[in-house]
This record gives sequence, C-alpha cells and structure tokens, in this order.
Amino acid sequence: MSDILSERTIPDIVVGRLPVYLRALQRMLQEGRRVTSSQELGERLGISAAQIRKDLSQFGEFGKQGTGYEIEKLAGQVQNILKVDKVWDVIVVGAGDIGSALGRYPGLNNRGFCVVMIFDNNPGKIGGEIDGFVVQNSAAMVDVIRAAGIQLAMIAVPAEAAQEVADQLVEAGVKAILNYAPVSINVPPGVKVQYIDPVVHLQRMTYYL
Amino acid sequence: MSDILSERTIPDIVVGRLPVYLRALQRMLQEGRRVTSSQELGERLGISAAQIRKDLSQFGEFGKQGTGYEIEKLAGQVQNILKVDKVWDVIVVGAGDIGSALGRYPGLNNRGFCVVMIFDNNPGKIGGEIDGFVVQNSAAMVDVIRAAGIQLAMIAVPAEAAQEVADQLVEAGVKAILNYAPVSINVPPGVKVQYIDPVVHLQRMTYYL
Repeated sequence: MSDILSERTIPDIVVGRLPVYLRALQRMLQEGRRVTSSQELGERLGISAAQIRKDLSQFGEFGKQGTGYEIEKLAGQVQNILKVDKVWDVIVVGAGDIGSALGRYPGLNNRGFCVVMIFDNNPGKIGGEIDGFVVQNSAAMVDVIRAAGIQLAMIAVPAEAAQEVADQLVEAGVKAILNYAPVSINVPPGVKVQYIDPVVHLQRMTYYL
Repeated sequence: MSDILSERTIPDIVVGRLPVYLRALQRMLQEGRRVTSSQELGERLGISAAQIRKDLSQFGEFGKQGTGYEIEKLAGQVQNILKVDKVWDVIVVGAGDIGSALGRYPGLNNRGFCVVMIFDNNPGKIGGEIDGFVVQNSAAMVDVIRAAGIQLAMIAVPAEAAQEVADQLVEAGVKAILNYAPVSINVPPGVKVQYIDPVVHLQRMTYYL
C-alpha cells in the first residue's frame, strides 16, 4: 500500500484529521473493542460518518460494507500512513514548566514519540534532572542533535528566544517543530511547524460567547 | 462597530486566524512599533498579504491605502471582535503537570484571561498551593463554578476522566472548554470545545517526513 500512497497527495486537511481518528481508535482498543463503524466514530468525534468514510477511502478500502471497521487493523493502517508505526525521537528545548511537563508526559510514548533530550540555556537548569534526563546546555545543541540525527523538536522557551532556537534546530537538521512559544516563527521550505498556544484557542471561543 | 458585527457571521476559519494576527500585533507593540502593513504581517505569519487584507476587511476598513495599519488601533479592534478587550475568568480542572503549568502561566493574563480556580479530585492535591491558589475539591466544582458565573474552563485530567468532567462543567454553566486530555469529548450545542494534544500536532508533521 505504501507504494500507492507515495504516488498520491493527501489533502492537508485530511492529514490533519487522521491523528484524531487514530486517537479514537486506540482509545476503543483500550476499551477492549474490536469493531467499529463510521457512524460510531463520527458520534465520538463530532464529525459526520460520511466525512470519515470519505477521508479513509483516500487510502484504500478499509471497511467492509455492512460489517464496519476492524479497529486494530484500521489503527495499524492509519499509524502506517502517519509514519507512527515506529517511534520517533524528539528533543525539547526549554526546561521550564512546559518543557518539564513534556519531558515527563507519559502520553507520548505509546503514540509514536519518545523525548530523548532536553536543553536549556539557564545555568541554574543545566545539569538538573527531569524524569531521568539530565538537562543539557543548549549551547551544544546544534552539534548534539545533528550527531543523533533527530528530526523532531518541541520549543518551550519564551517568545523572544523562539526564533533563534528555531534557526538552530533547522541548522541541526530538524525537519518538524512543535512550537509552544506564543509567537510565529519562520523556517525554510521543507521544515514543518505546528503551534500550541492556549490563548489562541481560548480566543477562538470567546468570539462566540 | 459592534452593531454591524453582531449582524453578520464571520466564517470560523477567519475567526481562527484573528488570535494569531492579534498575537503578532501585540508582539510588534512590545517591540515599540507603531505602524505595520499586510505585507509585513504576512511575512511574520507565513500568510499572504492578500489573505490578511481580506480577513481584516470583513470587519470594516482598518488600514488606509498606502499608509498601512496603526498597530495599537488594529490590535484594539481585533481584541474587541474577539471579546478579549475584557479579562475572562477561567478555571482549571486537574492539578497535575499541565494544570499546574497553566495555573502558573504568565502568558494568559495580558491576553484576556485569568485563571481564578484550580480543582482536583486527588486528596493528596486538594488544599495544596499553585502560584497562590489553593487547589479545591472537584466534588464541589459544579456549585462553585455556577455561583461564580464562570464560562471558561481548561480540562487537564487523564483521558478516562475527561468526559465526566466536561459533563460537570456544562452542568455548571461553562460555555467554552479547552481540553488538554487526549480524547474527544461530547458537549451539547452552544458549548464550544477546543483541543490541545501535542501528539496530534506531531503526527500531522511525521506524515510529511
């Protein structure tokens, strides 16, 4: 199937929904479930069953008419599509509240990611321990990340430091950045950025209140 | 202007971009800037200048042809549209790593939000202190939130507890929930939910690697 996949482009908006489908499927597996339907998935997710069938049909025929989806098989296929059938090493820059929480977060490990290093530039934090990691000096970050061949990073530094950190990560060969700093960053083509900023989400809701 | 606004519906996707525009404008103000252009905003945000002009024109004429936008004025107007020209009280449920980080996060206060209460159901956490707050017993949450008339909440509990917490928040009169638990939750019409799950964002990027 990967051959077929590599030949076609899946719309970004569909790629954006797949992790949510995968999360729901893995949750069903934890609940001991074996089979589901686009109707049930749709109710859980607040997405129409037709949309789910359409999204999943982009990658081939997953379900059988009338018998629904085998959850484990479908989850495995979505993992394969998202390339999280392997575990990706991730580094964290910033050992403050958010960086520390990410270093300790158990929810990453069973979903395709493993935090392997945490960096900071604060002498008071360098050498400290977070969930078994020793916080490393970010001055050495570029060489260490490049040597380890790590492609994924999470930025959890203050807004004013985020662009410089992003530039260093790009220099180190990082290809995907999850930015918790409340500021937009610029990266060259070929590097992906996603943002997490609680205020942006809150403001998207206050508009409607 | 509010009269005009209340008469028209702004597309969700535009509402979704306004907090990002506001964040960039407030950052420019911090940098001591007074005037900007759709070109400059676009470069900072990786969005086309035409898109920014089109989005902002939904609400009226903000900029003058050739002279750009007065940053402070435009920021004020976007704040007004998003209803963050006031400060919203927010409660946090869950006093673990994420809930504690949210309770301490200084980045909320100058952007329209103030955490006023933190709840947990763990006797080991109830009565403890986070940044000056005493963690309250979530058993009393519904009454306390209703009495205070609070409309915004952040959920930072384990996935298996999130739906029950959401149900209680809805019962308490909460109208907008930012859910950090890695699970989709169901709420009645009229209640907004937004999600923050780092794994979803990471998986949206690994697809492209």
